[in-house]
Amino acid sequence: MTGYKTIGKSTPFIDAAEKVTGRAVYTTDMKFPNMLYGKILRSTIPHGRIVGIDTSEAEKLPGVEAVITAKDTPLIKFGIFHEDWYILAHEKVRFAGDEVAAVAAINEDIAGEALKLIKVHYEELPAVFDPKEAAQPDAVDINGVKNNIASKFHVERGNVDQAFEESHLIIEKDFYTTQVYQAYMETMAAVVKPEDNGRLTFYLPIQIPSKTRVTYAKALGMKIEDIHVIQPTTGGGFGAKMETVLHLIAAVLAQKTGKPVRIINTREEDFEGGNPRVPMHFHVKMGFSKEGMIKAKDLVLYAGAGGRACYGVPVLGTACFRHDQLYKYENVRANGYLVYTNMVPSGCFRGFGNSQGTFCIECIMDEAAEKLGIDPADIRLRNAVYPGFVSCHGWVINSCLLQECITKAVEAAQWQEKRKEKKSGRGIGLACCNHVSGYSAFFPPFHGSAAVIRMNMDGKFLVMSGEIEIGQGQKTAFAMMAAEALDVPLENVRMAPIDTDYIPFGLGCWASRSTALGGKAIQNAAEDLKGKILQFVSQEYGIAVEQLSIANGVVVNTQGEEITDLSEIGRKYLYKTNGSYLYGQGYVDPGTVVPDMATKMGNPSITYPFACHIAEVDVDVETGVVKVIDYVAAHDVGKVINPMGAEGQIEGGVAMGIGWALTENMVYQNGVLKNSHFLDYRLPGSKDVPDMKSIFLESNDPNTGFGSKGLGEPAINPVVPAIANAIHDAVGIRLTELPFTPDKVLKAIQEKKKNKEGEPCRNF
Amino acid sequence: MTGYKTIGKSTPFIDAAEKVTGRAVYTTDMKFPNMLYGKILRSTIPHGRIVGIDTSEAEKLPGVEAVITAKDTPLIKFGIFHEDWYILAHEKVRFAGDEVAAVAAINEDIAGEALKLIKVHYEELPAVFDPKEAAQPDAVDINGVKNNIASKFHVERGNVDQAFEESHLIIEKDFYTTQVYQAYMETMAAVVKPEDNGRLTFYLPIQIPSKTRVTYAKALGMKIEDIHVIQPTTGGGFGAKMETVLHLIAAVLAQKTGKPVRIINTREEDFEGGNPRVPMHFHVKMGFSKEGMIKAKDLVLYAGAGGRACYGVPVLGTACFRHDQLYKYENVRANGYLVYTNMVPSGCFRGFGNSQGTFCIECIMDEAAEKLGIDPADIRLRNAVYPGFVSCHGWVINSCLLQECITKAVEAAQWQEKRKEKKSGRGIGLACCNHVSGYSAFFPPFHGSAAVIRMNMDGKFLVMSGEIEIGQGQKTAFAMMAAEALDVPLENVRMAPIDTDYIPFGLGCWASRSTALGGKAIQNAAEDLKGKILQFVSQEYGIAVEQLSIANGVVVNTQGEEITDLSEIGRKYLYKTNGSYLYGQGYVDPGTVVPDMATKMGNPSITYPFACHIAEVDVDVETGVVKVIDYVAAHDVGKVINPMGAEGQIEGGVAMGIGWALTENMVYQNGVLKNSHFLDYRLPGSKDVPDMKSIFLESNDPNTGFGSKGLGEPAINPVVPAIANAIHDAVGIRLTELPFTPDKVLKAIQEKKKNKEGEPCRNF
Repeated sequence: MTGYKTIGKSTPFIDAAEKVTGRAVYTTDMKFPNMLYGKILRSTIPHGRIVGIDTSEAEKLPGVEAVITAKDTPLIKFGIFHEDWYILAHEKVRFAGDEVAAVAAINEDIAGEALKLIKVHYEELPAVFDPKEAAQPDAVDINGVKNNIASKFHVERGNVDQAFEESHLIIEKDFYTTQVYQAYMETMAAVVKPEDNGRLTFYLPIQIPSKTRVTYAKALGMKIEDIHVIQPTTGGGFGAKMETVLHLIAAVLAQKTGKPVRIINTREEDFEGGNPRVPMHFHVKMGFSKEGMIKAKDLVLYAGAGGRACYGVPVLGTACFRHDQLYKYENVRANGYLVYTNMVPSGCFRGFGNSQGTFCIECIMDEAAEKLGIDPADIRLRNAVYPGFVSCHGWVINSCLLQECITKAVEAAQWQEKRKEKKSGRGIGLACCNHVSGYSAFFPPFHGSAAVIRMNMDGKFLVMSGEIEIGQGQKTAFAMMAAEALDVPLENVRMAPIDTDYIPFGLGCWASRSTALGGKAIQNAAEDLKGKILQFVSQEYGIAVEQLSIANGVVVNTQGEEITDLSEIGRKYLYKTNGSYLYGQGYVDPGTVVPDMATKMGNPSITYPFACHIAEVDVDVETGVVKVIDYVAAHDVGKVINPMGAEGQIEGGVAMGIGWALTENMVYQNGVLKNSHFLDYRLPGSKDVPDMKSIFLESNDPNTGFGSKGLGEPAINPVVPAIANAIHDAVGIRLTELPFTPDKVLKAIQEKKKNKEGEPCRNF
Repeated sequence: MTGYKTIGKSTPFIDAAEKVTGRAVYTTDMKFPNMLYGKILRSTIPHGRIVGIDTSEAEKLPGVEAVITAKDTPLIKFGIFHEDWYILAHEKVRFAGDEVAAVAAINEDIAGEALKLIKVHYEELPAVFDPKEAAQPDAVDINGVKNNIASKFHVERGNVDQAFEESHLIIEKDFYTTQVYQAYMETMAAVVKPEDNGRLTFYLPIQIPSKTRVTYAKALGMKIEDIHVIQPTTGGGFGAKMETVLHLIAAVLAQKTGKPVRIINTREEDFEGGNPRVPMHFHVKMGFSKEGMIKAKDLVLYAGAGGRACYGVPVLGTACFRHDQLYKYENVRANGYLVYTNMVPSGCFRGFGNSQGTFCIECIMDEAAEKLGIDPADIRLRNAVYPGFVSCHGWVINSCLLQECITKAVEAAQWQEKRKEKKSGRGIGLACCNHVSGYSAFFPPFHGSAAVIRMNMDGKFLVMSGEIEIGQGQKTAFAMMAAEALDVPLENVRMAPIDTDYIPFGLGCWASRSTALGGKAIQNAAEDLKGKILQFVSQEYGIAVEQLSIANGVVVNTQGEEITDLSEIGRKYLYKTNGSYLYGQGYVDPGTVVPDMATKMGNPSITYPFACHIAEVDVDVETGVVKVIDYVAAHDVGKVINPMGAEGQIEGGVAMGIGWALTENMVYQNGVLKNSHFLDYRLPGSKDVPDMKSIFLESNDPNTGFGSKGLGEPAINPVVPAIANAIHDAVGIRLTELPFTPDKVLKAIQEKKKNKEGEPCRNF
């Protein structure tokens, strides 16, 4: 924790300058000789049979080089956790926005004109949008599976029914979470360039450049290594930029024309074809002892997959049982159903189901505290997991400062004082969360990370990791960790851009895994390289290797005297080996246990982060407008690598959570998305986001990169319930349906006044 | 020699398809956000003092973002073998074409307009163009060195004067070679992109991506690793695409504007600012015994550096003494002078001085044979070096099939029959050459090559070499060698593109070094990787590593039974090591001896190639037009890696030699180049080049990559003297001044008729 030279110090992002000066090259900036521009024709109806597609007029348009429909694609069924994807809609469309045909033309205008010339004849089918309705036996069939259920999740531990019987207090409620859009700066895009030997080079703004190749190879009937992925600068992702048919459509157009093809989503297309948050309907029942100890939990969940399943499958499981590791549960049951609907297919979004689940649990915890007359912070402290705890699902809580997060947050937020202070319309709410740092079930063959470091001829270092930067500051954190591990100045370290021909196979940016796992691999590669450097110095200078070390970029002996500079060694090594560079390789095997398919027992993450958030809100009782006015976020983040970056993660996560809580929602009318642009889809602006106080509690996990833990997702998980609980504290209403828009707030206040809710009315 | 699965089989170039389909990305195809277009203002006079440069009007032109003159550059003197370069002309201009100022603008038209607005005030100075004249004490001073002599070369062995006294026949003549242009398809170009941390990424069509960095770092006052070079597809080089100020001008413009800057030469600019062949004036005296054995040689050489020296320094030495290793010389003396002139600076061109020297020697050999009544083939056989021979300069001729080249060429050309056949205007001529495969004095720290090979997850291989492809088929040869060494199918090998962040530090494409040295490094890296693969298989399958080998991409045991496929191993290794790939590294230390600066003793190349060419010509005695009608080229090329590629090298080299012999020449008028385009600078067309017969003699050098030797340069070295000797055989004239244009031929024929030359008149 102490004695570090680079990590732990706030460091501006190493790629900040190129971004703010416009030098960074995004996918939209890429051009190649003979490059064509692709456009996708999307279904205008939410559900229907494709009777015929007439592309003849489009094909005749001068400048059009290819028009494709499903028949031009390999027609291989593929998918992520569920093989229900085709590259283009085959026989049916399942949502308004479904990809029906595509064109490649010499410019975007012609491509756009060509789309208008394609005639699609649909036979419309009834459509269904609510996952619970869609799971009814009489619902219309969307994907040929019984009751439209794409995936089920069941887990049960202890004796749930008996535990409810023994409970002093039982709370049972429904919660509704919305389909929200990740709203990254850069829309989805691809340039796909056909190479000799049938290889395809994909230039993709993507979170999983290595892992994508496995899926795309299957979809295209190609070999994994023939899918070459380069990640240009990427403008955000938040879970959305995983596999998408857009990339594959560009690939098929490139194969068909033999030319590079670029497709860039407009913002509207991005809403329609994206990968938004899985909307969920929860029914949660929790039992408590008189002292506030959780006795039992039973959760039933219907999650809306949209027209095809994707990461909805693991999102479902996550929403069902990941939060079971936050408190000392013994008796839990969860039954979850991922159900096809005729909405935009939903998937990964920061928090990944755990945000949805945390909303329910943390609202119920607040209500239980109130009903039992316990301080909301206190009820959580009583139930909180601790270091060494093994959950009912087998998860081993190695390092844990959850209790400290709660006490520090409470202290910093003046929780006690503010709870006592009764100011009209103002309230304060608290929520906790746990999360993972990687998840071993996502790519079962392995779950660690690998790194390669090359010492260059000036004694500086090039770090190759397959884990990626999408704006979160990963490159900077990695460079800092490499500099620390090598004991060289930060400016002597560069991060290699992501090109699957050079980087290790990295699983990518999801499950808040990169720093903990990728960082550890870099640490190990640095150790390997350091050993080789010192071995070479030992030979060159005739000094025993045990007497040598690197300090601040210089090789020193045990007396701390400089033996040689690394730039000297870089050059000497290069000359001696006729142009070779010295490489260090390292990897981390996290020792995780993939949860068993049947029993769900396992230990899927190398470490587990925790957090406690406290929100303070003002509720305008005349208008129903909720404003978050203060915010404290305390995180057990292991070891903070870059405080400035970590604060940015928290501030971004909280802002995103505020949007989800208060204003954002994808609104459909007759199955067609009606607010696919930022005029009607309201993101929080800077005035909607309060000053925040970030508190870092460093549990320094022994297994991860410098003891770090994931932070990206814990930063959003508790935001919605903290706000919900603050609203309750302010105006005595318990909102359970997102977003907490003024109309809902006003309606709840009015019903409250009529005392309909049957709850004590505070602050009124 | 036998038993190879891949090498030795004619193989289409692996990058042919991308080139012919237009998919290949050249520097001209590159675009970046905010990219600016640079243009260079060149001196219109051959010699003058710069009194003033007014850039104010150019700076005011909307769209112009930078105008630079010498004062905006670091003003560090730098150079290759001689530090007489500035990035832009400083105080003086030394040739018409000298780089005086440059602009960067938002498009090329504006950049061109801006050039017109720059006013340069020169004080003109007398100019000198002939190197011998320029070396006179009263000549105008060009670069501040005595007698304008940029570099001297002196070597002397044995007792030259005494050996001349003992000679039976002495021939003493002058030879004049021309400044010719390499005439590659793609002109010189650069895109330079400023990166964060002050690094610059250079996209350069260049032969020496790694080595360039050393020079450019010095010129820009930067560190070598901050010069990041990427080589896009490159359209030929032939020696010209070494360091050039164009790249540095783009760099300074990029630094000044903070934006990527692209500069592309027009063909005219490329002629004026290029790096053409060093023009030379030789005085050569050779003494022979009655039996045709060479007794002594004395050579005096004035070489024209042009306005600044560059590779002219080693070209001078090469022209002075490289050909001394062709025959068993004991008594040789050479005095060479590289002299500044006010012509375009000259440098590397395929053959590198040895072509010029070979022209003189091989014409004299022909004349000596004639005068001594010995068959020209025979006189060479008598003098030819042989395996195990150590030259008077210390060069060790390890493998050598020179004598076999002569006998095989003679046989294939029907030499005896055609010599006897006396057809009017038709003649046959023979010439030999030796060359090197790399040259250790060019970058004295090392002279070998290094390679890295990565096994991918499909068990295919990515080969990283710093040696490069410029159209000669190097990539294909390397891929074949890697496939052979790994014992996998060729399609399982890919060559990594040239990016100095990933490739080893390769010395690059010059001195016919890449296949012999780079290939050996690849062979060694493949052996290293094979060992690691088999070690892993041994562990996984519990079979002793000694019992395992790879055959056709499959791991087999001693009985030849398949144990596992490499794709299985690639995947297994990746999974087991959490995303790591297996790397093999290798390098070759050629054991060469850098020629001593003072004594010139050394052994600079790992191996030495040899060749014998026979040309048959028709001379039109009415018009003086010479037409080459048949051609045989026999080469000791070590081991032929790709026969199709090797034939291409020979055919290209011979065609280029025909142009040099008959039509090409850079013509100046008052010091200004007058034929800087292909209308007036006449390259041979397909009708000027005869069918050729290529004969390969495989000496299988024990030290090089699969026994290969350099071929690129030996292919041009003997062409001019073979044609000159054939012209003599046809019409009895001995031409000593290039090119052999109709006017010179006619004039010589007329003088011959007047019997002025005093030689027996054949065929008339």
